[in-house]
Amino acid sequence: MKVLDAKKRLERWHKFLKKAEWKPLYNLLKEAPKVEVADFMGQQKVTVTIQLFAYFPVEDQAALFSHFNDSRKKELYDLLSPRTFLHIFIQLPSDSRVDFYQQLDEKQQTSLLPFLPKYIAKEVIMLSAYPPDTAGGIMSTDFATVRDDITVQAALAKLREDAPSSRMIYHLYVVNEEMKMIGFISLRSLVMSAPETTIASLVKKTFVYAQLTDDREKVAQKIQHYNLVALPVLNEDDQLAGIVDHDDAMDVLRTEQTEDMEKFMGIVSNEEDEGYLRTSSLSHFKKRIGWLAGLFGATIISGLALNRYGGIIKIFPLLGFFTQSINDTGGNAGSQAATVVIRALSLGELQIKDWVKIVWKEFKIALLSVSVLFSFAIIRSLLVINRQDALIQGKGLYMVALVISLSVALQVVASTLIGAMLPLFITWMGKDPALAASPAITTIVDLTGMLIYCSTAVYFLG
Amino acid sequence: MKVLDAKKRLERWHKFLKKAEWKPLYNLLKEAPKVEVADFMGQQKVTVTIQLFAYFPVEDQAALFSHFNDSRKKELYDLLSPRTFLHIFIQLPSDSRVDFYQQLDEKQQTSLLPFLPKYIAKEVIMLSAYPPDTAGGIMSTDFATVRDDITVQAALAKLREDAPSSRMIYHLYVVNEEMKMIGFISLRSLVMSAPETTIASLVKKTFVYAQLTDDREKVAQKIQHYNLVALPVLNEDDQLAGIVDHDDAMDVLRTEQTEDMEKFMGIVSNEEDEGYLRTSSLSHFKKRIGWLAGLFGATIISGLALNRYGGIIKIFPLLGFFTQSINDTGGNAGSQAATVVIRALSLGELQIKDWVKIVWKEFKIALLSVSVLFSFAIIRSLLVINRQDALIQGKGLYMVALVISLSVALQVVASTLIGAMLPLFITWMGKDPALAASPAITTIVDLTGMLIYCSTAVYFLG
Repeated sequence: MKVLDAKKRLERWHKFLKKAEWKPLYNLLKEAPKVEVADFMGQQKVTVTIQLFAYFPVEDQAALFSHFNDSRKKELYDLLSPRTFLHIFIQLPSDSRVDFYQQLDEKQQTSLLPFLPKYIAKEVIMLSAYPPDTAGGIMSTDFATVRDDITVQAALAKLREDAPSSRMIYHLYVVNEEMKMIGFISLRSLVMSAPETTIASLVKKTFVYAQLTDDREKVAQKIQHYNLVALPVLNEDDQLAGIVDHDDAMDVLRTEQTEDMEKFMGIVSNEEDEGYLRTSSLSHFKKRIGWLAGLFGATIISGLALNRYGGIIKIFPLLGFFTQSINDTGGNAGSQAATVVIRALSLGELQIKDWVKIVWKEFKIALLSVSVLFSFAIIRSLLVINRQDALIQGKGLYMVALVISLSVALQVVASTLIGAMLPLFITWMGKDPALAASPAITTIVDLTGMLIYCSTAVYFLG
Repeated sequence: MKVLDAKKRLERWHKFLKKAEWKPLYNLLKEAPKVEVADFMGQQKVTVTIQLFAYFPVEDQAALFSHFNDSRKKELYDLLSPRTFLHIFIQLPSDSRVDFYQQLDEKQQTSLLPFLPKYIAKEVIMLSAYPPDTAGGIMSTDFATVRDDITVQAALAKLREDAPSSRMIYHLYVVNEEMKMIGFISLRSLVMSAPETTIASLVKKTFVYAQLTDDREKVAQKIQHYNLVALPVLNEDDQLAGIVDHDDAMDVLRTEQTEDMEKFMGIVSNEEDEGYLRTSSLSHFKKRIGWLAGLFGATIISGLALNRYGGIIKIFPLLGFFTQSINDTGGNAGSQAATVVIRALSLGELQIKDWVKIVWKEFKIALLSVSVLFSFAIIRSLLVINRQDALIQGKGLYMVALVISLSVALQVVASTLIGAMLPLFITWMGKDPALAASPAITTIVDLTGMLIYCSTAVYFLG
């Protein structure tokens, strides 16, 4: 028998779905990974989802629910009986529970709260209070704790009794009576130790943790850097408030990276993004128009500069044919430098204090680039320039070629340094360096490009 | 007692380091997370690393070694006695072992192989054979298997006996005599089940897996999508060849995202990248100059276009002041569209077959943007244009403003569609869509911009 892959499973499910054979379909679905089943059910009409949903036990319903996208969750909330929904809601992983709770309107929230068990209601309110971009905002409270004065055998027995299926148990946390975190023990070391070993002899008291207010990207990077399955989150009294696990970390990194990339290209990110096709054209438009219109307006400055210093270009119209070239190359060099610096900043490889090293390195890189581009520019301008045209205007061909090549060189050096420094400057201002958007750099270096070009021309030809 | 964070730990370590109190320093280090200790030791002189290294038992040495960066690994290999190194090498996680082995030159490799236990030598050679960007190239063989005809209690006892510390045991794999994968069981369900339960009743026979030749990015995305701690890798006979675990997946996603971002900004990525500051200026230069020089050369085309069609601009020099504006705005709109499409492609949200939907959506977005930019352009051009200048040349001010605004509008629509389609086209050619680099788009839309601008001007003014 061949091992089935997800695609083949999906084909089989569709066969049963077509024939509306719910029970045999359920028998297949219940064996499959929940994420895959949720994907499948989420793509069908909501009536079909509900039809199938009814077959699953409530813990599975909760697992499926937590994997549906936001709009499907809302539809189910509207269609299920309040009683059924309540059972599912209580079984949800604590972070999914809060996420969904926050999407309800105030009236819906207050109609739900009184029916929740007290400790869940308290927890929902507590978790809702943390900003979504902090450790507190992404953590879950589904961790398991263990006392350190018992044996491995007793701990395993207790785990079997206590931990509901949604709970993360690969790390168990040792806390004192005041919930202060003392250390942790991995399920691996629990399982690998002799049953009569005491927990106290296994507990790791030197550990990594996050604080409630830590930025979620920092938290995710910590999980990645330390290769953790979960990171404990402590409040200012060192009490264990929650955990962030590795798949939350992966989700955060993915979202942050999309945001970084979008920001960098002058697109305003929004949190509730549901994928390219599901986002309306109007939302796409709103995310893009700000920068697009702003920068369109900003080109007015280089327009004015050209107006003020552009006399020389009117005298030597030839120079005009190279403005685009000089500006584009500057924009490219600046964006390259910015990309590399922003990425290194966001991976934590660079800090602001490294700015001297960065400037020095970028300066060297720019000089290397210039060594190639300068000769390239000389050859190119000699080939393109209309020899007679230059002579007519009373200046030698070589002089014009020199002006063009020298401008390219100066522009590349200036743009590279601007591109490298702008993200650092924005970080220093306490903002996200990805805001040093490539379009912004392009516009800025257009201005430096015009100034460099015109003054070089005036100096040598004027 | 306050819980110590990584920073405070580091300060304490440095105090002992300064006083060269190795033994007390070791006593602190041995309790701390290995990644942190490796970071600390890796930043000291290699002699200090070796001094401290000697205190650790060989399993810890292997763990530390696997976390050092490549140059520190090489230094240790050169300085440690071959015998000591051999012990460490044998204890390394299988994926780190192969990575390091592949960095040795042929002579070093052949001097190492005969001293390895046969099964390790075989494995090293086997794993070295897979391309580094496939599942086979990133997988490890440190998985644990379990038979399905025994009880939970027996399985736990066997695990305690067999599994060395480097082994991933959160998922246990059930295979038949021919190593064909039958299913898996999570350590969680093992621990949570009564001791006398049989494995056969717990094993999950419907599971997700990768194939040896699958692209590593796809593999990482699968781990992320399914929230897995590890993904089994099967060969074409469905035999279990290895596993990829969640932190390998995170590393792959991080590397791929850096590559995407760099590619998109016209930077050639290379695998052995060791971070911004450690990479030499020459390597940085090499990664950037290709696109920079290529695009500089490519602007020759828009230069030629300007030469051919630019007569109209010579007649109306005013139009010249807006070329930059029109080209920049086109470049920005095109890059925005490309960014969004590339990101959606790489997250698997879009496929090539969606191209009609994408064109339609981008067309609508472009029209929305145009509605803003057109009026903006009209106002702007009326404000900036020197009224007399326009009248002198015998055409009305409004006509010139219309030409400018209409060109902006056409350019935004054209650029948005080009920016959205180029990544799809490149994907269709079987290449990475991130190659639809923003600088490339800028250069292409410069050309369309010039054509649009000049022909609009000729039509209305010429």
